[in-house]
Amino acid sequence: MLIEGSGVRRTSTRLADGRELIYFDDSEPFVSGGATRRLDDPRPLADRFAPVAGEDGVERPFVGPELRLDVLTGDWVPMASHRMNRTFLPPADANPLAPAKPGSAYSDGEIPAEDYDVVVFENRFPSLMTVPGASAEPWHADGEELFTARPATGRCEVICFSPDPDASLKDVSPRRMRTIVEAWTDRTRELGALPEVEQVYVFENRGKEIGVTLHHPHGQIYAFSYVTPRTRSMIDQARAHRERTGRLLGRDALEAELRAGTRVVLESEHWVAYVPFAARWPVEVHLAPRRDVPDLPALTPGEKDDLAPFYLEILRRLDLFFADDDVPGDEVTLPYIAAWHQAPVREGREDLRLHLQVFSVLRARGRLKYLAGVESGMASWVSDTTPERIAKRLQELAR
Amino acid sequence: MLIEGSGVRRTSTRLADGRELIYFDDSEPFVSGGATRRLDDPRPLADRFAPVAGEDGVERPFVGPELRLDVLTGDWVPMASHRMNRTFLPPADANPLAPAKPGSAYSDGEIPAEDYDVVVFENRFPSLMTVPGASAEPWHADGEELFTARPATGRCEVICFSPDPDASLKDVSPRRMRTIVEAWTDRTRELGALPEVEQVYVFENRGKEIGVTLHHPHGQIYAFSYVTPRTRSMIDQARAHRERTGRLLGRDALEAELRAGTRVVLESEHWVAYVPFAARWPVEVHLAPRRDVPDLPALTPGEKDDLAPFYLEILRRLDLFFADDDVPGDEVTLPYIAAWHQAPVREGREDLRLHLQVFSVLRARGRLKYLAGVESGMASWVSDTTPERIAKRLQELAR
Repeated sequence: MLIEGSGVRRTSTRLADGRELIYFDDSEPFVSGGATRRLDDPRPLADRFAPVAGEDGVERPFVGPELRLDVLTGDWVPMASHRMNRTFLPPADANPLAPAKPGSAYSDGEIPAEDYDVVVFENRFPSLMTVPGASAEPWHADGEELFTARPATGRCEVICFSPDPDASLKDVSPRRMRTIVEAWTDRTRELGALPEVEQVYVFENRGKEIGVTLHHPHGQIYAFSYVTPRTRSMIDQARAHRERTGRLLGRDALEAELRAGTRVVLESEHWVAYVPFAARWPVEVHLAPRRDVPDLPALTPGEKDDLAPFYLEILRRLDLFFADDDVPGDEVTLPYIAAWHQAPVREGREDLRLHLQVFSVLRARGRLKYLAGVESGMASWVSDTTPERIAKRLQELAR
Repeated sequence: MLIEGSGVRRTSTRLADGRELIYFDDSEPFVSGGATRRLDDPRPLADRFAPVAGEDGVERPFVGPELRLDVLTGDWVPMASHRMNRTFLPPADANPLAPAKPGSAYSDGEIPAEDYDVVVFENRFPSLMTVPGASAEPWHADGEELFTARPATGRCEVICFSPDPDASLKDVSPRRMRTIVEAWTDRTRELGALPEVEQVYVFENRGKEIGVTLHHPHGQIYAFSYVTPRTRSMIDQARAHRERTGRLLGRDALEAELRAGTRVVLESEHWVAYVPFAARWPVEVHLAPRRDVPDLPALTPGEKDDLAPFYLEILRRLDLFFADDDVPGDEVTLPYIAAWHQAPVREGREDLRLHLQVFSVLRARGRLKYLAGVESGMASWVSDTTPERIAKRLQELAR
């Protein structure tokens, strides 16, 4: 299927254990339909919902992950205890995101094709999963009203940005980035249509400093069956602002940043990048569309076309942030988290405004900000720099 | 001054730059007043509020840290930009928490005495500080209503648990731990009485894995001029529970844990330790008093007496959590955060119940949980274990 306005062909298939895998192609002969990526996965994988043998050797029905309500904070906490049932784990040096080796009977990893442009598939060891036929009803553990639990339904997906394991998202072409934007959009729309899904979260973790062990360029997509705490806070703030002013908080914040100007890093026809007034991370930049939209599916093809080179330019600057300008070609690969904040599926759609928050824990070359007692204990952040300093550095890195 | 019911003598003095330092003594001849710890600090430190010369050599009035309101989330973010004014930083290998060297004209570090039992002093480079005479009024930066800022008033203190730089909190005697509890109580009471303080947070960061570079056993005390986000969530939850049931949420949660029993780790006359039903960290245990109290100053001397050995027993088990039981004497020093959750000074005092949350990012020997896209981007936690597994391990480590 060609995705309208994008030049991307979408081809969905199933892996041997039933998980969905979707190719997003922008290269020939695939995009025109002259050839198709390999669709079969002949690996001997058991159905992922099949009964599993416990440590005692007894087979039991597959039980997915569980959500528990933290009654002190009101947060849902997925417990990925089902992973404990698993005996198979891939060897640490394997790259499950690499294309299949040419001529091999089947891939060592997750992707059947010997090459791909962009590919998305369901995570083999997800924190959130919907078990077909299982009840989604909550229950009270230990017969206690305060111990509320329910199945951690939802879905976790992986998106591969490039078949090259040594590439980085910033290295892809604008054409390929445009395809990635289309894939993010597709996943937001499709996952958001699942009855159990309340919020779709598209993100990338990059860098060993934040625990990424798989260096193949990839991102993730979480389809939550609950609204996450940060999104809940943002809805509350935006709703209060609307009730007080009649206006959209995200729009007013963007306009204030544009008027102030000092923290604006980059502008294009459809997008603005700025360091927010109260940025809390050592490096942080937000990318927002000029038009009020709740999520990626609401973007026009033109806005997506514009986003691709715009985001690549921001990513280019991030790896120069801590570089020594006096050393030609110096780079410091920035560990970062790129978090797409989208309105949830049902709630807050009139209040939340799409933006991408990119931030890093790197304070200086080789120096990390740790999340210790103040952050992890009280969810309170202390910045060791100022947003103006961050913005100044990102501004001076313009070509 | 002898602190009633504690056997602790409290002696306050000022460091050369005006910061307060307080000895909490439980040993002779100090506790009975037969001798006094050294009170003078002859170091040539400038008044910390004195004007400072900028990079351009021009002297400017000292400006403290700034609080900015993150309008998207409603969180206050201290910007410790004032630290940039400082030219002096101690050498990385110095230990500012060590007692003064015998016979030296003055200490290389912060503590004038050649020995101490427990000592508290104001942090030299605080994230929060009240500058005398400065206005505490908020302002709108760039003339924008959405850019709200105000001085980051409050206070940051350091508490030294032992004069021995190689000790650990778990190694102190029950008598010394009792003194530490008294010092925490004193600081909560005193700092909570400051007009600008809304919340007193007593905590300990332990372990290089969470960024602690100073290994001398110490904790910290933050006196915030705002209510932190986690505390705000806990107040909201507890208030809703009270409105619905007329009861105290913390008490009901404790009673449910006691009835369920499976996650209870340790019980004493006045205290209960349990892994909460929705524990989100790889290792987590809560210590709660049996009696409903909002904060440490509300504890009776008997409850504090009981807490000292109780907490030491929990700390002993934590360093055995990932140890190999088949290797005699094996220990894995657990990086942990110990966070005292107390009711704020003015708000939520009828709803919040004192408890100590101790948690770790260690998932296994040498394996950390990182706070990446899901946690840092969405403030949503995923547990890779279950509270029952954590509790079982802590239970089996009973002597």
